[in-house]
Amino acid sequence: MLDKKRIDEIVSNYKNFKIATICSHSSLQIFKGAREEGIKTIGIVQKDKRKLYESFPLGRPDEFVEVDSYDDIPFDDLVAKQAIIIPHGSFVEYVGQKFDDLKIPIYGNRQSIIWERSRDKMYKWLTKAGIKTPRTYEPDEIDGPAMVKFPGAKGGRGYMIVGSEAEFKKKVGNKDCVIQEFIVGVRAYPHFFFTPFGKQGYQTGHGRIEMLGVDRRVESSADEIARAISLGMDIDLAFTVIGNEPLVLRESLLSEYMEIGRKISDTSFDLYGGLFGPYCVETIITEDLQIYAFEVSARIVAGTNVFPEGSPYSVYYYKEPMSAGRRIARELKLAAKNKKLTQVLY
Amino acid sequence: MLDKKRIDEIVSNYKNFKIATICSHSSLQIFKGAREEGIKTIGIVQKDKRKLYESFPLGRPDEFVEVDSYDDIPFDDLVAKQAIIIPHGSFVEYVGQKFDDLKIPIYGNRQSIIWERSRDKMYKWLTKAGIKTPRTYEPDEIDGPAMVKFPGAKGGRGYMIVGSEAEFKKKVGNKDCVIQEFIVGVRAYPHFFFTPFGKQGYQTGHGRIEMLGVDRRVESSADEIARAISLGMDIDLAFTVIGNEPLVLRESLLSEYMEIGRKISDTSFDLYGGLFGPYCVETIITEDLQIYAFEVSARIVAGTNVFPEGSPYSVYYYKEPMSAGRRIARELKLAAKNKKLTQVLY
Amino acid sequence: MLDKKRIDEIVSNYKNFKIATICSHSSLQIFKGAREEGIKTIGIVQKDKRKLYESFPLGRPDEFVEVDSYDDIPFDDLVAKQAIIIPHGSFVEYVGQKFDDLKIPIYGNRQSIIWERSRDKMYKWLTKAGIKTPRTYEPDEIDGPAMVKFPGAKGGRGYMIVGSEAEFKKKVGNKDCVIQEFIVGVRAYPHFFFTPFGKQGYQTGHGRIEMLGVDRRVESSADEIARAISLGMDIDLAFTVIGNEPLVLRESLLSEYMEIGRKISDTSFDLYGGLFGPYCVETIITEDLQIYAFEVSARIVAGTNVFPEGSPYSVYYYKEPMSAGRRIARELKLAAKNKKLTQVLY
Repeated sequence: MLDKKRIDEIVSNYKNFKIATICSHSSLQIFKGAREEGIKTIGIVQKDKRKLYESFPLGRPDEFVEVDSYDDIPFDDLVAKQAIIIPHGSFVEYVGQKFDDLKIPIYGNRQSIIWERSRDKMYKWLTKAGIKTPRTYEPDEIDGPAMVKFPGAKGGRGYMIVGSEAEFKKKVGNKDCVIQEFIVGVRAYPHFFFTPFGKQGYQTGHGRIEMLGVDRRVESSADEIARAISLGMDIDLAFTVIGNEPLVLRESLLSEYMEIGRKISDTSFDLYGGLFGPYCVETIITEDLQIYAFEVSARIVAGTNVFPEGSPYSVYYYKEPMSAGRRIARELKLAAKNKKLTQVLY
Repeated sequence: MLDKKRIDEIVSNYKNFKIATICSHSSLQIFKGAREEGIKTIGIVQKDKRKLYESFPLGRPDEFVEVDSYDDIPFDDLVAKQAIIIPHGSFVEYVGQKFDDLKIPIYGNRQSIIWERSRDKMYKWLTKAGIKTPRTYEPDEIDGPAMVKFPGAKGGRGYMIVGSEAEFKKKVGNKDCVIQEFIVGVRAYPHFFFTPFGKQGYQTGHGRIEMLGVDRRVESSADEIARAISLGMDIDLAFTVIGNEPLVLRESLLSEYMEIGRKISDTSFDLYGGLFGPYCVETIITEDLQIYAFEVSARIVAGTNVFPEGSPYSVYYYKEPMSAGRRIARELKLAAKNKKLTQVLY
Repeated sequence: MLDKKRIDEIVSNYKNFKIATICSHSSLQIFKGAREEGIKTIGIVQKDKRKLYESFPLGRPDEFVEVDSYDDIPFDDLVAKQAIIIPHGSFVEYVGQKFDDLKIPIYGNRQSIIWERSRDKMYKWLTKAGIKTPRTYEPDEIDGPAMVKFPGAKGGRGYMIVGSEAEFKKKVGNKDCVIQEFIVGVRAYPHFFFTPFGKQGYQTGHGRIEMLGVDRRVESSADEIARAISLGMDIDLAFTVIGNEPLVLRESLLSEYMEIGRKISDTSFDLYGGLFGPYCVETIITEDLQIYAFEVSARIVAGTNVFPEGSPYSVYYYKEPMSAGRRIARELKLAAKNKKLTQVLY
């Protein structure tokens, strides 16, 4: 992985940074948030998507960098433009393994993306944090419905359920995957934000965290599967995320959620130097109010798009409409002002 | 149908138009939006509903026109008051076939309501637009679960599922209806707005479109049918819309949705002179991220009521809270200012 | 129950009242709302929850009163601080039977909590109001799926379904409970607010009511049970509320909902001197658009947490963001200004 000193050198030459990301995932919100904080933005865009992004006067980037393929992103040019990359889910997916060595400042800590990308590492992270997780199985341990997940987020596409080792062998074979106990409950996706600078928010070992919102992912076909079942159709559950909807949690669950957020944050410092900025801990809540965490997203999640003007949680921290995108821009502005940009870039 | 020249003559005598509609469907939002744009409003109301509408200081119309029955709406009086009708779903349903000949300016194009009303025409429209739709069946083609829909919107009431020709004959008989393939996925209802004047928004052949929001309809009993199933109850799916909830789509789906909106808009000009203002293309998204359109609503939809202060999409176009109702009022104000009212009225 | 005169005496000594409640349920919203109206707040908090509540600059109370147990709330000290209690669901649950005799002013009417607490009284209330309710059964009348509910709200935890008298005897035995017909439909929870002072809102026999929002409770596992069913899992429905999501009703249902709210309000005056402030009538809407009410919450409900900045309904009454919490603070401010505090405290 690229030496962090290289990034620090690049940043030392930045006088007026810009915020850049690929036009996808949560980019409208990121560009809008930056605009609200007075920071210029660059949208990396494929030609056929440019028309879409130009159509939003408040969501469009100030400047486009057109690419034929995400393999051809001109990172040197972006550095010349003083760009800082915001690595959302699509950015991470499209750039792939090259991410680790990108010679451009990335907001957060690229180590956190590496820990997110490997399901083994992610489980080590969750376990070390002392957070309840679904059991993970070896194929011969499958003793009931189990989720099979493949590498990469891809918005849940291709995830499947198997009920036995035989079914696993038939449907999955030797493909690289993780097998998780299927837990019955309601899913909730809290949007945390870690800052090492903050004077407000929930105290952690290395700074503060804020809860900027909670969403539920809407999955096709799982979220309307009941209609098919009631018709006697024999259809496999599928988990392709098609969007998100807002959720507010019982206030009595908040304390436990903030502790989950704190543990993930503190453990990230123990493991690899710390996660900075937005993250999400994917959870499921059972009827006994047990909270299980089944994934970590170590960057902005698309669920924050539900709240481009703030959420039923952000309003307890901020009088102005505060999206995750805007919070990122504000953090970078603050860091720059206090000459601490390198602390939150890698 | 009434000659458009008659409408143009009426409009030529309007000095200070008002916005009028029936107190129902999305009228609170329409009246509120007009108030925000400084336009006076008239609510056509049945006596027993007046108390309700008087109770909302910001949602009530400036003036009531009480009627005993929607058959007795005094359209001549409304013209004397310089009213422009906003034709929401209930207006269209209550006024019925008389709609085509109403001697009063209607926002949009009354042709679009005629194309919406006929399921044959609607299918021609969707097909000509090149949009993927569920298969439609003749009774003897039913080879699996199929939706049966009857004329008129009526909020989904009375729609049913049949699984075979025999079941169709037993349950439906010779009633006028359309039979659609039942598709498993998640429904999403995007709220488009077409303007021929706009300088912002997604470019189409005849102007621009904006995406003002997305909702999901909440249907009884379909949206809680799983509870009944889990209890072993043998209950038929029903699709009566009881309300709406917000939804945000994957940002990577937006491009395809805007293209769907554009095609519907462009085709409306090819077919009948163009749809103006708000419309919705009812869709379902499968686990393979295929988008099927199964209906068009060629006027404001009730799902916009979720967003009387703007949506997670409108904020990318407007700094002020922009509902569909307010957008309509603004469009009419702009048209009037530029002496182009007749372009968007019929 | 404590004589109301005692409360009136206490209030007569209040010069500058504060708003107090237990840090839980809807307290963030209550504290935020009071802050917006310029009223100081006191949070009754258990030591281990204090960190959480301190972390929200706009949701924290101005002052904490730490307790080891909710049995030890120093109500005399709170009276010395000129506190008025806002009795949310957790407050009522934690304080228990002692609630009736608390020597401290409580916003609303403590009689209403007593009528909410007893399922017999609640049914008398609903029935006398002439509102459609699910049938209630004696065990030997169970002839299909029936909900069994136990005393206390507890967020739905422990509610269960039985299908026959035999199953009831096996699962419930002689425990105190109420048995309700299971109705298939969509649940909707309207948030009403009664004021005896108001000049706006829906007129009732004793004042006005406003509709401040509508939510749906999200229950584990019931709201994702379809996933389990589709996997062939044999799982009992459970109804533990884990959070809430927004809902907007068909505008044509509003009139009936306001009538339900009015009837509950008017009947509360007939039965026990009247409910003041926020309340909710828990309903289910069938495919025939029949509305059944199955519970009354005679105080602020947690579903209002979805709308800390106002809802798609509050905007038809208020230009400023109006949560239920803020509405309470405004009501108390207005009552104090007009020397009518005792009218809404008991």
